[in-house]
Amino acid sequence: MNVPVPTKDDSPRVVVVGSVALDTVTTPAGTRAEMLGGSAVHFAVSASFFTRVGLVGVVGDDFPREHLAFLAARNIDLRGLDIVRGAKTFRWTGSYLRDLNAADTHCTALNVFADFSPQLPAAYRQAPVLFLANIAPALQMHVLEQMSPSCYRICDTMNLWITQNRTDVEEVFRRVHIAILNDGEARMFTGKHNLIAAGRAILAYGVEYCVIKKGEHGAMIFGQDGFFVALPAYPVEDVVDPTGAGDSFAGGFVGYLSACAAHDQMTIRAALRHGIVMGSFNVADFSCDRFRTLTVREIEQRLADYNAKIV
Amino acid sequence: MNVPVPTKDDSPRVVVVGSVALDTVTTPAGTRAEMLGGSAVHFAVSASFFTRVGLVGVVGDDFPREHLAFLAARNIDLRGLDIVRGAKTFRWTGSYLRDLNAADTHCTALNVFADFSPQLPAAYRQAPVLFLANIAPALQMHVLEQMSPSCYRICDTMNLWITQNRTDVEEVFRRVHIAILNDGEARMFTGKHNLIAAGRAILAYGVEYCVIKKGEHGAMIFGQDGFFVALPAYPVEDVVDPTGAGDSFAGGFVGYLSACAAHDQMTIRAALRHGIVMGSFNVADFSCDRFRTLTVREIEQRLADYNAKIV
Repeated sequence: MNVPVPTKDDSPRVVVVGSVALDTVTTPAGTRAEMLGGSAVHFAVSASFFTRVGLVGVVGDDFPREHLAFLAARNIDLRGLDIVRGAKTFRWTGSYLRDLNAADTHCTALNVFADFSPQLPAAYRQAPVLFLANIAPALQMHVLEQMSPSCYRICDTMNLWITQNRTDVEEVFRRVHIAILNDGEARMFTGKHNLIAAGRAILAYGVEYCVIKKGEHGAMIFGQDGFFVALPAYPVEDVVDPTGAGDSFAGGFVGYLSACAAHDQMTIRAALRHGIVMGSFNVADFSCDRFRTLTVREIEQRLADYNAKIV
Repeated sequence: MNVPVPTKDDSPRVVVVGSVALDTVTTPAGTRAEMLGGSAVHFAVSASFFTRVGLVGVVGDDFPREHLAFLAARNIDLRGLDIVRGAKTFRWTGSYLRDLNAADTHCTALNVFADFSPQLPAAYRQAPVLFLANIAPALQMHVLEQMSPSCYRICDTMNLWITQNRTDVEEVFRRVHIAILNDGEARMFTGKHNLIAAGRAILAYGVEYCVIKKGEHGAMIFGQDGFFVALPAYPVEDVVDPTGAGDSFAGGFVGYLSACAAHDQMTIRAALRHGIVMGSFNVADFSCDRFRTLTVREIEQRLADYNAKIV
């Protein structure tokens, strides 16, 4: 059963495949239960400020209608969201009381997400850009097989897959144009503590670019012929909830690339700044609530502020 | 007894007070014994590329003549270096095998440095800029009392003093224009994990600027009226020895300010980039050995590379 909310005729320019979840999160700012979450959601909401996104995921029929309405209102194509009757949505419970940079997971109830086997609607398969959010690398490959070979492919991953399915992660890296990892994952995957060495080692798998996210310390991108950019984070004094910051970063980064229909080094450089700014908005409230009121003008102002004053 | 090497007539533009040491260091690149080290040395050598530095410190008569010759050849004024007959030089032994960002101290033999009571030569007391490297805050205050009240004052500190002499550290902060701390010290001093909040809290002590060094993640500077700049580190893949990186950063930062005879926000912004570049050169070899062959042209090239490509 697919979601019965209205979608526009235009096909998505970016397809994202990942988790759709209900998150219960505790941070120094408080506890919030059953909030809209998941890697595909955080990515899609952020990218929706720049491009038309098609979301591929699965939820149970307990998934609140108001969340579907919010995503549709952000012009996100939900034809790829499977709503399974009688099933329960993936739930994650975690806290950041020890360290705002590292979540402590208290409970992961995969529910319907445990049997996720992404099927892309026909209208998605010619999308020019694909973002593989954090799902098992075998599923990421299953998605790659359904997409047009001409699409520009970007993937995320996580420590679990690096430990348990390393060969599959390597295979995904060989098939994508950009690999995005956080600093801990890059060190784990390469065995190199120095992040410059780690970034270059990942390039050797044949990706065009490798992005290393460093949370409060910003992000770096490595490319062929020694291309390298490092940027600090936009300063946020009151971090309310860091959940989804990395996916919001990816949403700004990939969304901007999609809007430009380019991935040359100049565009990549600008895309990194857009990712950093979108990540900084995400952490200012729980869930992706900051994006409910965010305007394009606010994004432009923060970009100008970042470019002129911070860096 | 003061050092009998020739000094030029011109008085120093920057006075640094801190440790002069013989370091034995183990890193993944190997072990080196009894190398030239100490906070005042690393600062002075780096700053000497931009300005004339007067060094205030103490060593024993076991301090190798070749080190004095090297410092003098860098045009560093050594009239403030006290050489105590029959005494031994401060020695530090440490390693970075666990983490290149954090030294494990194996032995600290203060020797003659235990009784250090800095006395500034008359020719130093009118210097327009003073850098108080990492020494006990009571000694930092003793130095402040000897300097012209018109001098521009910058201080470093360390976790030991924050824990043991917190009130003195606060008093020093009230008397300087710029406080430089690393991220761990800033968190410890303010009790705030968020570095943006920590930086702003230190501003409240009345400093004009607060610099937070983050090692491989670069540096941030906070000023009045919301002034804020964050910059990533210059990428160094082969870190040979991080000892002295923070003091070399300070040397580039303060040396550049001294050369400009200014500390407005535009100058501060450029000074931060000079500090980052000088820190990146320091870690490329043991001790301050990279600076033995470094040329002004190499500094300019790396600055251009950093400004045009990295950030």
